[in-house]
Amino acid sequence: MSSTIPLKGIVAYPITRFGLDGHVDLKTYRQLLERLLTSGVQAIAPLGSAGVLPYLSDEEREAITEATIAQVAGRVPVMIGVSALTTERTLHHAKFAEKAGAAAVMIIPMSYWKLTEDEIFQHYQTVSEAISLPIMAYNNPATGGSDMSPTFLARLLQLPNVTMIKESTGDVNRLHRLVQTAGDSVAFFNGSNPLAFDAFAAGATGWCTAAANLIPDLNLALYQAFREPANLENARAVFLRQLPLLQFLVAHGLPRTVAAGLELAGIEVGPLRAPLLPLSESHRAELQRLLKQVRESHE
Amino acid sequence: MSSTIPLKGIVAYPITRFGLDGHVDLKTYRQLLERLLTSGVQAIAPLGSAGVLPYLSDEEREAITEATIAQVAGRVPVMIGVSALTTERTLHHAKFAEKAGAAAVMIIPMSYWKLTEDEIFQHYQTVSEAISLPIMAYNNPATGGSDMSPTFLARLLQLPNVTMIKESTGDVNRLHRLVQTAGDSVAFFNGSNPLAFDAFAAGATGWCTAAANLIPDLNLALYQAFREPANLENARAVFLRQLPLLQFLVAHGLPRTVAAGLELAGIEVGPLRAPLLPLSESHRAELQRLLKQVRESHE
Amino acid sequence: MSSTIPLKGIVAYPITRFGLDGHVDLKTYRQLLERLLTSGVQAIAPLGSAGVLPYLSDEEREAITEATIAQVAGRVPVMIGVSALTTERTLHHAKFAEKAGAAAVMIIPMSYWKLTEDEIFQHYQTVSEAISLPIMAYNNPATGGSDMSPTFLARLLQLPNVTMIKESTGDVNRLHRLVQTAGDSVAFFNGSNPLAFDAFAAGATGWCTAAANLIPDLNLALYQAFREPANLENARAVFLRQLPLLQFLVAHGLPRTVAAGLELAGIEVGPLRAPLLPLSESHRAELQRLLKQVRESHE
Amino acid sequence: MSSTIPLKGIVAYPITRFGLDGHVDLKTYRQLLERLLTSGVQAIAPLGSAGVLPYLSDEEREAITEATIAQVAGRVPVMIGVSALTTERTLHHAKFAEKAGAAAVMIIPMSYWKLTEDEIFQHYQTVSEAISLPIMAYNNPATGGSDMSPTFLARLLQLPNVTMIKESTGDVNRLHRLVQTAGDSVAFFNGSNPLAFDAFAAGATGWCTAAANLIPDLNLALYQAFREPANLENARAVFLRQLPLLQFLVAHGLPRTVAAGLELAGIEVGPLRAPLLPLSESHRAELQRLLKQVRESHE
Repeated sequence: MSSTIPLKGIVAYPITRFGLDGHVDLKTYRQLLERLLTSGVQAIAPLGSAGVLPYLSDEEREAITEATIAQVAGRVPVMIGVSALTTERTLHHAKFAEKAGAAAVMIIPMSYWKLTEDEIFQHYQTVSEAISLPIMAYNNPATGGSDMSPTFLARLLQLPNVTMIKESTGDVNRLHRLVQTAGDSVAFFNGSNPLAFDAFAAGATGWCTAAANLIPDLNLALYQAFREPANLENARAVFLRQLPLLQFLVAHGLPRTVAAGLELAGIEVGPLRAPLLPLSESHRAELQRLLKQVRESHE
Repeated sequence: MSSTIPLKGIVAYPITRFGLDGHVDLKTYRQLLERLLTSGVQAIAPLGSAGVLPYLSDEEREAITEATIAQVAGRVPVMIGVSALTTERTLHHAKFAEKAGAAAVMIIPMSYWKLTEDEIFQHYQTVSEAISLPIMAYNNPATGGSDMSPTFLARLLQLPNVTMIKESTGDVNRLHRLVQTAGDSVAFFNGSNPLAFDAFAAGATGWCTAAANLIPDLNLALYQAFREPANLENARAVFLRQLPLLQFLVAHGLPRTVAAGLELAGIEVGPLRAPLLPLSESHRAELQRLLKQVRESHE
Repeated sequence: MSSTIPLKGIVAYPITRFGLDGHVDLKTYRQLLERLLTSGVQAIAPLGSAGVLPYLSDEEREAITEATIAQVAGRVPVMIGVSALTTERTLHHAKFAEKAGAAAVMIIPMSYWKLTEDEIFQHYQTVSEAISLPIMAYNNPATGGSDMSPTFLARLLQLPNVTMIKESTGDVNRLHRLVQTAGDSVAFFNGSNPLAFDAFAAGATGWCTAAANLIPDLNLALYQAFREPANLENARAVFLRQLPLLQFLVAHGLPRTVAAGLELAGIEVGPLRAPLLPLSESHRAELQRLLKQVRESHE
Repeated sequence: MSSTIPLKGIVAYPITRFGLDGHVDLKTYRQLLERLLTSGVQAIAPLGSAGVLPYLSDEEREAITEATIAQVAGRVPVMIGVSALTTERTLHHAKFAEKAGAAAVMIIPMSYWKLTEDEIFQHYQTVSEAISLPIMAYNNPATGGSDMSPTFLARLLQLPNVTMIKESTGDVNRLHRLVQTAGDSVAFFNGSNPLAFDAFAAGATGWCTAAANLIPDLNLALYQAFREPANLENARAVFLRQLPLLQFLVAHGLPRTVAAGLELAGIEVGPLRAPLLPLSESHRAELQRLLKQVRESHE
């Protein structure tokens, strides 16, 4: 693992925990981190979509950044999500993460007004020139509102410090096009859970996933099945075991489903931050059934 | 004009002005407001999409709210955009607007994670029960990320204080469906500039537009052509005169195009807030041509 | 009504009738035509989408062409649908229609492989240079598979004999763009039933509709409400009365719904041509309710 | 290879050849077939999309069916495309293919009016009960107009004789869902050229492709790389070599691009059937560059 590409394998996205008073609960959050670390994941990435980054205040983001780095304590690399609507706030959080000791930062171009490619490029450029940490450029039009083509992502990789791509469109063709444009040594990560098998087959360096809060062993088993020499049959089998759950997480939203899944596993999770509501009863029952099925098939 | 539906006609959306230091410039902003008021628009609505609401801090939003109400000084109704990602911040800004003396507030369900209908409903409900001002529910999936169907919008109208709908999908069928579901006395406003003619023909109460920063006389003339008795031929003619400009504004984004249009009219406008960049030179030339054409056709 | 634009108002699309043996039933088809003529529609257009043109053999198409022209006998203009996948077959049917005495022909670019604009243009050009009848160029990507932009449609209007446009995308912006590009004297017809009000408001010359098989009086009343001087309030009222039915027809397909509607009106209609199946029982019940509601509101 | 699933590997789709007089040219078509057979492909499938099936008369289809089976003479299995808009014509061609000695037939639900699932199901059922040949159900909404979900495709597999699925949506998630629903022994074939690598990784039995007219050796090499034991690295390399060409074929349409590619290889190919036009000069130059690049990388 190089210093410019400090991540690989299962990059786990912890959810953010809230207390009954609605405030971020760092104590139980740290317990979640320990649980993830014990499971063997290769990296920790707080303040992503699953961590409801956009719903947090600057102060909350900074507290989570510091708490994560302190808790992980160098056991695995920590990548901090530092995205914000304005370039100024993104820069602020990127610098904060660097000073706090992060191994990398992740940036998705958030938008209200549709951004032009020039605007997105300059946004990354401003940040990339002001810090010395590796940057993961994250494409997820469904949440961020901007769609960056493989060609544009390859352009971003020419900026200083932009060394990694996370693709979450769910279209495997994008991954091939990225390799075609940026070369087959490009470090790309999959962010679309149901595409985990296909992304590893296509050469992904890692899988960024909040599913690791619930089924880290299966996530890790998929990654292992693709290590040299890849065993495609095993990989397919272990993927199909977890696929129904991955599809469910995506269909109903990571913050709701991961929180419900942790509760079903006996871990107390506080409320979500409004307007987000807990998973409905019927969906919770479906999740319980899926988790049971996954565990049984895994034994 | 009733107290529950305090708006009609041309509801003008001023842009937010920034100084060279990047801070909000309230002095020149007030001059913009005077310009709009002189033009004869029927209402003023700061902190909308054109006002780059999501890029502003809480303090900036509050300052603009107070400055607008003070400057308008009761000459026309003022509707304040109070949307935020969390329900808590939306509530905060709604209460602030009420206390500051707004005539109404506008709320779009902003999203990062796709919201469920229950979540959106509860979001509006929480705010609607905590204030006494009329609320305009605003649908614009392209910016807000959530799409509210006509049926769902009709449900929102049953909440206390939710009395007005703003529709910006650009699909006139939505307007007919809204009338079908909510009844033909529903107060709906058009937020899709190129649909202005069709929305008035379909019975819209008003047109929410940032185009009033540039061509208020043409906007007002369209509204007038639909006043009783409607003169469809006149309306069509005055609409076709302004349509190329309206299409341009939508194609290239309101903050960029309105700012450029004001500069072309000799009004000094500061920078946009990054990552937003000024309109490109070639688009600026096209805008100049369109504005010239509109003025000539209008004489 | 000129010879180059021989249509206006309600252009009625009769469905094709089949006997229990699966063959086209010209006798009952002629009765349908009489019913339409009695209702007062301004033109008859067989062999459109409602007439299941693509499911008919060449011989069947020719028989229907001749039967229609004979039965109408000059009382109103007849426009024949002559579309086919190949240029050669399209040309064949266009020439046949001309020889049989049609007033106009309608052509939609049918596709299996997505056609380029050059291919579509040359397709129209070949036919337009070989006949002397006015041609209506018909855009309906949902059925034909090709989407012709307003700019491209304006280009087609420069071909000899191409004098009319039928637009069925259901997007009123397309109509305005067509007027912008082709000039406000362009003869365009609406083919999207739920857009009938908006298209007439935008200046449509006529409305091509299979709804005239069921509610010709309401279709005609809408057209009348837009005659000089237009009465927008009346138009809106008469449109809202028929809109639920128009939405139903589009949602469930014209051949199925018109056939079911005729049966509900006591007119024996044979089977549809497989794979098309009759409307389901539950949809048939909904249609009956809608037809009853329309009739009551109309009295 | 069983009698119920008689295909695997590279299923080559020959294009249809036309003479200068516009008629089907069976003599040069047979030469094309020989070229394919010599290349080592595992099956031949005439009258697919590449063979411009929908642009052919019944007589032409029958002649091609007989000529193909005679020429192949049992060397590899022959699957005949028998799709038509009506059930009656589909049945006719399916019976003809069976009598002529085909190993299987392929059916895509063609549509003009959007078909319901009941209609599509009954369409397949009628044919499947009337013949004894294995049927490949083919999903390609971009050409056929109907989109069959994995769940629906799994239902079709319960009909007699429907034993194989061809998926051309280009979404690898569909393939996983099909396996989830129909079981991991389901025989599915990939019809989306740029998805060839991913489909084989996901367990596809074969790849239906017209690219075999141009680069059969590369197509076969990809298939081989996935034979037990799969060599993922080799597969990825051989896929990336041919991917630019596969993307080009899809972007510009198989009939045009395959014909141009054959001409560039020195094989005389007649005109396309109008409205289809030959590839433009600039695209032809791009194709020549891509073919050269593929050949060089392959050496």
